[in-house]
Amino acid sequence: MRNFTFSIPTTIHFGKGQISHLSELRQSGTKALLVYGGGSIKRNGIYDEALRILGEAGVQVSELSGVEPNPRIQTVRRGVEMCKSEGIDMVLAIGGGSTIDCAKVVAAGAKYDGDAWDLVLDRTKIKDALPIYSVLTLSATGSEMDSAAVISDMTKNEKWGTAAECLKPTMSVLDPTYTFSVSRRQTAAGTADMMSHTFENYFTKEQGADVQLRFCEALLRTMIKNGPIALAEPDNYEARANLMWAASHAINGLVSEGSADPWCVHPMEHELSAFYDITHGEGLAILTPVWMDYVLSVKTVSAFATYGRNVWGLVGSDDWSIAHDAIAKTSEFFFKTMGLPANLRAVGITSDEHFEVMAEKAARRTINAYVPLDKDDVVNIFRAAM
Amino acid sequence: MRNFTFSIPTTIHFGKGQISHLSELRQSGTKALLVYGGGSIKRNGIYDEALRILGEAGVQVSELSGVEPNPRIQTVRRGVEMCKSEGIDMVLAIGGGSTIDCAKVVAAGAKYDGDAWDLVLDRTKIKDALPIYSVLTLSATGSEMDSAAVISDMTKNEKWGTAAECLKPTMSVLDPTYTFSVSRRQTAAGTADMMSHTFENYFTKEQGADVQLRFCEALLRTMIKNGPIALAEPDNYEARANLMWAASHAINGLVSEGSADPWCVHPMEHELSAFYDITHGEGLAILTPVWMDYVLSVKTVSAFATYGRNVWGLVGSDDWSIAHDAIAKTSEFFFKTMGLPANLRAVGITSDEHFEVMAEKAARRTINAYVPLDKDDVVNIFRAAM
Repeated sequence: MRNFTFSIPTTIHFGKGQISHLSELRQSGTKALLVYGGGSIKRNGIYDEALRILGEAGVQVSELSGVEPNPRIQTVRRGVEMCKSEGIDMVLAIGGGSTIDCAKVVAAGAKYDGDAWDLVLDRTKIKDALPIYSVLTLSATGSEMDSAAVISDMTKNEKWGTAAECLKPTMSVLDPTYTFSVSRRQTAAGTADMMSHTFENYFTKEQGADVQLRFCEALLRTMIKNGPIALAEPDNYEARANLMWAASHAINGLVSEGSADPWCVHPMEHELSAFYDITHGEGLAILTPVWMDYVLSVKTVSAFATYGRNVWGLVGSDDWSIAHDAIAKTSEFFFKTMGLPANLRAVGITSDEHFEVMAEKAARRTINAYVPLDKDDVVNIFRAAM
Repeated sequence: MRNFTFSIPTTIHFGKGQISHLSELRQSGTKALLVYGGGSIKRNGIYDEALRILGEAGVQVSELSGVEPNPRIQTVRRGVEMCKSEGIDMVLAIGGGSTIDCAKVVAAGAKYDGDAWDLVLDRTKIKDALPIYSVLTLSATGSEMDSAAVISDMTKNEKWGTAAECLKPTMSVLDPTYTFSVSRRQTAAGTADMMSHTFENYFTKEQGADVQLRFCEALLRTMIKNGPIALAEPDNYEARANLMWAASHAINGLVSEGSADPWCVHPMEHELSAFYDITHGEGLAILTPVWMDYVLSVKTVSAFATYGRNVWGLVGSDDWSIAHDAIAKTSEFFFKTMGLPANLRAVGITSDEHFEVMAEKAARRTINAYVPLDKDDVVNIFRAAM
């Protein structure tokens, strides 16, 4: 196990009705910037309920709405400007990971003198942030409990992740009933996203981290069990609750600290989203089995066999056979059980014209991964995913 | 899954050499009370190293030494008196769970006007505490990352657990090399203790908490793998690291919040320790398989079969057979693999003279457990454990 520092400063209020805890925002001041996406939180009543609780607590609210599914730096800049001009004390995101990510960089930008895009390109420039709160409405990214945010500048086809300790939310409300109305497509994509986070942490050069590896398997089994239930019964509380709580733990440090290598599939997917604005979870699902096949080797077969045995319950003594079956199971789960698009063509990427430039950018990060991938490797994976 | 609030305010610095982070105590003031047990931390150099780092950080140190394995309220009172008379800013425990537990109640007692024993008998009286820091030297209780403390008054044969949010340490140093010198006997007892914490959380009436149950299984598998390695190779870093990190997670809320019922085997063991001052982990090991056999029924057989399949890898379709085999595996692990004493006679409890009064006290808590146990049940379990 590698040396690490473990810190989860986020208080989670989990369960039905926990939105009442929004009154705790009053501890951070009296002026909140409410950040959200489209109108869904108005249709399902969360918006009215939040405003009522904040009003009773004596918290005034300004609003930054229209956050995009791949949140744009232009929206972040609008939010930063509001924070600075209105003397905002804290940021409250109500939505999924995109909304929370946007709110995080707004909160950091409010404490930074330059352009917020600097903070996306260079995480070391994030020194401070307004307190961040969230009410989660989609189980996927884990942004409600982690230090990271992903922001895009589509005018430049750029999508990058940034992170800082001060971007970890102060408090998040996780009410599974808020995800009952999440569509089949977004439920499937969210499940793929949280599984990908777990895979990124699970496959590592570190050999000694039993706690973290066994926790990864626990999360994957939970996701594989409950994803299909949530598709079949969108208002199944237990399925939604387990997906929600598993997604948070996949990325809050629990299964990465002391063990994980730099991520690999995410940097590749970020290029797909940056150039084609596709749904992040769908891009991850498409790339994951292709990546698994590509990196399977005499060096990695034991890890993939362990995955097959401990997650899929596969039995047998031949590691190669178990590893291949485990990858096939992964594909089957994503593309048949969860109904996710199975290749790049299915999400509208029908040409390889940008693959070289996309791969060059992705390889800046993938070159340090579990199995290092250079530009050519990434191009190969993109092509195999078409 | 039940509603819950999840909060881990403790920062963990994990790994070799992390004691350098003791300089962070300066954030809490300039006067620390150093709490420790016998002289082992002087023999292995941790004491000198800690004093050097604290000195360089500008932190003065007073000392409360001689904390007992089952820490006494009399020692707590001495510490409280020192905090009050010397204007102590923070408490630093260096040791195992007993030392940290003692330090916690000292920290709370320093902020309380009455006798510290009040805080042990009634946790609602704990309103505030001095900041608590720890350097862990024994993997077992998880006190380094949780809200609980267990204190005894042997003059009254009383041993009770108390808990409060403010008893969660601010920061703990977990350096696996500090546990290399832990004896075979204490390594085995510590492993039994952390496994018992996991069992207490794992067997629950709550049916919907997949994340928590799968995490419990991950911890148990980690402990069962690494306990014997640590016995055979006391300086195996990976084994010690995995035991240390697993022990913390068994009790920090991760596997209990949203899922666990009130504990059961611990209240029974506390009576053994209160009357006979036995080693806590040995008492837990003795009682656990007896308790499992006693509560196995048509209502619980499915849970014990799941335990057998997911932790011990047992296969077969007959739940009863798997459950019985799982309990037998548990006994075999404790008493053969780990060499723990197998019954009460082996730890010197040769008479049932106090069982009635012990059981009456334990039943105050066990009556609310996974399988409710009244006084007669507890007496039956004590007798079966002789």
